[in-house]
This record gives sequence, C-alpha cells and structure tokens, in this order.
Amino acid sequence: MTARSGMSEPGALMAAEIAEQPQILERLRVDGLAQAAEIRRAIHEFAPRMVIFAARGTSDHAALYAKYLVEVRRQLPAALASPSSLTVYHSRPDLRQALFVAVSQSGGSPDLIESVEVARGCGALTLAVTNAPESALVKAAEHHLDVRAGLEQAVAATKTYTAEMMALAMLFGGGDDALVPDVSALPEAAARTLAMADRPYAAAQRYRFAQRLVTTARGYSYPTAREAALKVMETSYLSAQAFSGADLLHGPLAMVDGQLPVIAVVSPGAGGDAMVPVLERIEEAGADVLRVGPADGLPVVTDGVAEELFPVLEILPLQQLAWRLSLDRRQDPDRPRGLLKVTQTR
Amino acid sequence: MTARSGMSEPGALMAAEIAEQPQILERLRVDGLAQAAEIRRAIHEFAPRMVIFAARGTSDHAALYAKYLVEVRRQLPAALASPSSLTVYHSRPDLRQALFVAVSQSGGSPDLIESVEVARGCGALTLAVTNAPESALVKAAEHHLDVRAGLEQAVAATKTYTAEMMALAMLFGGGDDALVPDVSALPEAAARTLAMADRPYAAAQRYRFAQRLVTTARGYSYPTAREAALKVMETSYLSAQAFSGADLLHGPLAMVDGQLPVIAVVSPGAGGDAMVPVLERIEEAGADVLRVGPADGLPVVTDGVAEELFPVLEILPLQQLAWRLSLDRRQDPDRPRGLLKVTQTR
Repeated sequence: MTARSGMSEPGALMAAEIAEQPQILERLRVDGLAQAAEIRRAIHEFAPRMVIFAARGTSDHAALYAKYLVEVRRQLPAALASPSSLTVYHSRPDLRQALFVAVSQSGGSPDLIESVEVARGCGALTLAVTNAPESALVKAAEHHLDVRAGLEQAVAATKTYTAEMMALAMLFGGGDDALVPDVSALPEAAARTLAMADRPYAAAQRYRFAQRLVTTARGYSYPTAREAALKVMETSYLSAQAFSGADLLHGPLAMVDGQLPVIAVVSPGAGGDAMVPVLERIEEAGADVLRVGPADGLPVVTDGVAEELFPVLEILPLQQLAWRLSLDRRQDPDRPRGLLKVTQTR
Repeated sequence: MTARSGMSEPGALMAAEIAEQPQILERLRVDGLAQAAEIRRAIHEFAPRMVIFAARGTSDHAALYAKYLVEVRRQLPAALASPSSLTVYHSRPDLRQALFVAVSQSGGSPDLIESVEVARGCGALTLAVTNAPESALVKAAEHHLDVRAGLEQAVAATKTYTAEMMALAMLFGGGDDALVPDVSALPEAAARTLAMADRPYAAAQRYRFAQRLVTTARGYSYPTAREAALKVMETSYLSAQAFSGADLLHGPLAMVDGQLPVIAVVSPGAGGDAMVPVLERIEEAGADVLRVGPADGLPVVTDGVAEELFPVLEILPLQQLAWRLSLDRRQDPDRPRGLLKVTQTR
C-alpha cells in the first residue's frame, strides 16, 4: 500500500480523509463499543500496575495522549516505550504487572511487532490498537481494538490519528474503570469544527514562505502540538518543532523572536490555563502567536465534549491548515517526497 | 543566580565550564562514590518494579539517558513523567513499587518539587539528582546524589549535564544491582575528546548561516541528539530538531533535503549499528551529514569506556560546536536572550 493513486488531484486523498472523520468517529463509537467494552473488562481484571505504550510517528502522538489519560483518569503510571531497549539492546524486563499497548495504523512495523512479542514473553498483557485487523501486530497481541477508519491512502495520517485517539479514550478515559465513557458528542463537534475550514485556510497564508515554526501546548493538548508539527513537516517541509509549554521556557525560548511563528493550543481547561504564563513569555519575546481553541484564532467546537476528549477535535483545523499550506507551497500533501505509507523500522 | 558576571568576554563562562568537565567527572567519581553506593543499596533493598524520571530541559536529556540505562541494565520498565499529570491534573497514582527520580541542576523548579512531594505521598521511593545540595528539591526527596559540578554560571548547561549523566550511570549502569560500575576511564577520555576542539570549531563554520538543523541517533545516543539540538537552539537560535533515527523515517524524513543539515551520532555499538539504514535513507534524500563518533567526523575518544557510558563523551564536541557557532554568529552563548539560569515552571 504505497499511496500512489495515479490520476488524483494533488491533496485530493488527504482532503477526503480529513472530511471523513466525523463519520469514522461515529462508526467507531457504534461498531467499536462491544470490542472496547470487552478489552476494558479484561484490563480491569488484569489490574495492571503500569501501562506502557509503543508507537511511532503519528500513532506515537495518539499514544502520548493515552499516557495522559492513563495517568489522570486511571491513576496509573504510564510510559512511552523506547522500542530500541527491547529490539536493539535486547532488554527483557519483568512486565507481569504491566499492560503493553502498541498503537499503529498499519500494524506492520517490525520493531513494534517484536516489541509486543517480547513484552508478552515478559508477562505483560498485550493490546494492539490498529487500523489493520489482519496485520502481524494484531496476531502478536492478545487483544485488539480495530479503529475502523477504512483504508488510509494519503501518506500524512489524519483519520487514523483521530480514530486512534478516540479508541484509546474508549479504553482509558472516563470515570469508572469498567465502563466505556460517553464519546457521543465527538462526531457532531468534529463536523462543526471542520465546517469552519475558511479559518485555517486563511491562516495558512501567513506561513506561505516560513521555513520554521514552533507549536506548543500543555497536558492533554501537548500531543496536538506534536502532531500538528509533524503534519507541517511531512506536507510542507517546514522545520516545525513542538514543545510542551513548560519545556519551551527551559531553553528553546531563546530562539523565539518576531521571525519565528508560534501556534499555541489553548483549549479551555487546566491545560490551557497552564499555558497563560507561557504565552506571556513568548509574546514578550515578540513572537507571532496563532491560538487554536479560542474564537479569535482557529476555533474548535467542544459543546458537550469532556475536556479529556478535546485533542480529538483540536487537531482538525491544524490538519486543514497543513493541507492548505502544502498546496499553497506547490507540494502534494498526498505524496510527501521520500516517504512511503508503511514505514519499516527495526 | 542569573548568570550576569558583568565584564567577562562573550562565551568565557561556557568555555570554562566545558573545559572543566574532565576534573568534575573525576571529582564525582571519587567523592560521589560513597553516596552513590549507599543510594544503590537503598534502591536494591526497595526493589522497585519501575522507575519514573522527572526533569526539564537539559536535565530531561540526562533523565532520558537514564531511562535507557534502567531498561537495558536494570531490566526494569522506566518512564519519563509528564509533570503536568501530577501538578496540573492532580493525578495521585499508586506508586508503592516505583522509584521516582527528579533530575535538576538547580533543584529549584516548583513543578519538580511538587512532583517529588506527590510521588512520595503516593508511596514512591524518591531520589533527587542535583547540583544543589541545599535546594528545596533535595529536601523534598528521601535520597540525594550531589553531582558536585560546582556553580554553573553560563545559562546553557554543559558540565551539569555530563555530571548528571555520570551520576545516573553510577546509580543505574553496570552489571551487578548492588555495585557502582567502573567509570574510571571517563575523565581521561573526556579530556582527550575535548583536546580535539579544532574539529568541532571547523565544523561550526558550515552552519554559520543555517536557520535549521536536524540531529539524530538511536538508543543510548538519542539523548545526545536531543541535548545537541537544545544547545544549538539556546546559543545560536537555530531551529534544531532531534529525532530518534526510527522516528525520523516516520514522517520528518520528507523535509530532509540538501538544504537541511543533519548531525548524526553514530558511536560504535548497537545504537550506532541501528543508524546504518537511517543514514542510507537521509543520504539518498541528499542531506548534508556530519557524523559524531567516527574519525572523519567529530571524533570521540572512547578507549576503555563501556558503550553505555559513551553519551557522557559524545556531547563534548557538540558543546564545543554550539559555543563556537554562537560566537561566530555574534551571539553570547553565556547569555542567551530571554532566558534566566533557573526556570520556574508549574
């Protein structure tokens, strides 16, 4: 699957996949409920003392989101695996109290498959969250949640990202350990957010000739900053750097000036509140700041949606911005140079 | 402590602190041994099932290095804490089987202090690795390893980074759980590596007008790539992005071309070997690659030093490169704009 669909318009695939997201979230909500409930029960019974996530690229940002969910909602320590510890250095830790979760669109990356096999051998309960129910990764893990996003053809992942996040929220979000949380307001909120595409399209003009960009956020929204930076790198070849707001103040702030654009995700809630002192500092430094969330920036509709689910929505205008920017810069966001759809790393 | 020493030459503080590193490593090796042995025994008795590190900025890169050490050498799952889970979202996880390690030059960042207090309240064994034995962070933790680097005046951390890494290696490296590993070859290897300063100074010329830079490595050396990028950001205001070799292939590769310089850390060993396919791909993409480690790049002396300790040495020529580049660009690496020595984040 190398995303060469020959005759299509530049960006047609990515545009279609961005637009499809509300329906995909709705399908996952309905068709994925039983599978999510079953896995949730299995996790509850296993009663892990920690959760370890393994992923690469866009899926790693979904995993980072899930790390916050596990820490805040499940009150468990959570880690992002360094796959090389298991695959390059052959570490064999005792994981008998760990839940090991691999997140992957394709289910095909050899290092993730090997990581799951090793983790399972070390006693972990293993789970794959993928868009590929027939993949080797699914065969390697004991449990599988299919994110049901359909074939993703554009190399830059969009719909699998939001579907992976919602799937992970169905597993780790919400109040009661055993109950899948209510995600029913997400599809409609996603549709209404996507309908304001004129805003991100207008914002893209600002970055037409930029070579560099910084994205920043805190807490649940930090993965949004990471994923937005990756989208812009992949489709428009900018050097886009994501920082947690706190880390930005520890050094990287020095490079911020009027020539370096900043995109800050500041959704209402604790994470957005924690960004206030960060925004003060970067504005003192003269930065050009675009806010994602507030009405005067790139608005995100969150009516009826719990704060922990905002990241599923925040990325939408940023996907639209990356797509528009890539076309404006005479690139094809469906076919970034040098990339194939499935990346094989060991 | 705001690193204003008035009349000193630009870069004089950072240069002195870079040069001081061999003596500091030797002092830590000798004077820190008893303290390290005692903490190592306490950890051995506590028998943690996982290790969680909390840190910011440069110290976060030392913590990332220690994460690999713990996973590979202690065979335990390790995590980098998201401090905001504890401080912004008020998570109170069960940490009765966890060792919680805060790494901080100053011991003064409020979010780290609060994280240690919370982790201790949640049952973790707590440890502070700092350069500030009288700090609030040390008072909050049950154990403290003093890295003994002396007052660090340049805002860009150098000697505290290598001292923190060596301290963490004394706690988590080596073979036997209870025995502090042999780090005696490090000071001499550091001195010999620093003596080849002409190489990084010459290399700095290449980036005189660069706005962007990518650094990359895998495994133990990945923290070196992260820290090198931060040094260049802080002192020379480039947009410098660090990627693990595997992550680079998952998307960011698209932005790599002949206009984007790449610095790759490829020390001999498993991590460097895993970089071979990554280097093939980035060279296919036309990148300009500077290798750290091999004789034809920025050489690193590793005679008699165990592979797991290479990161303490690899960063040295990159500190020299960042210092030279900053001066060449008419900046003062001792006083990056917009930064104070101690960053307060919550």
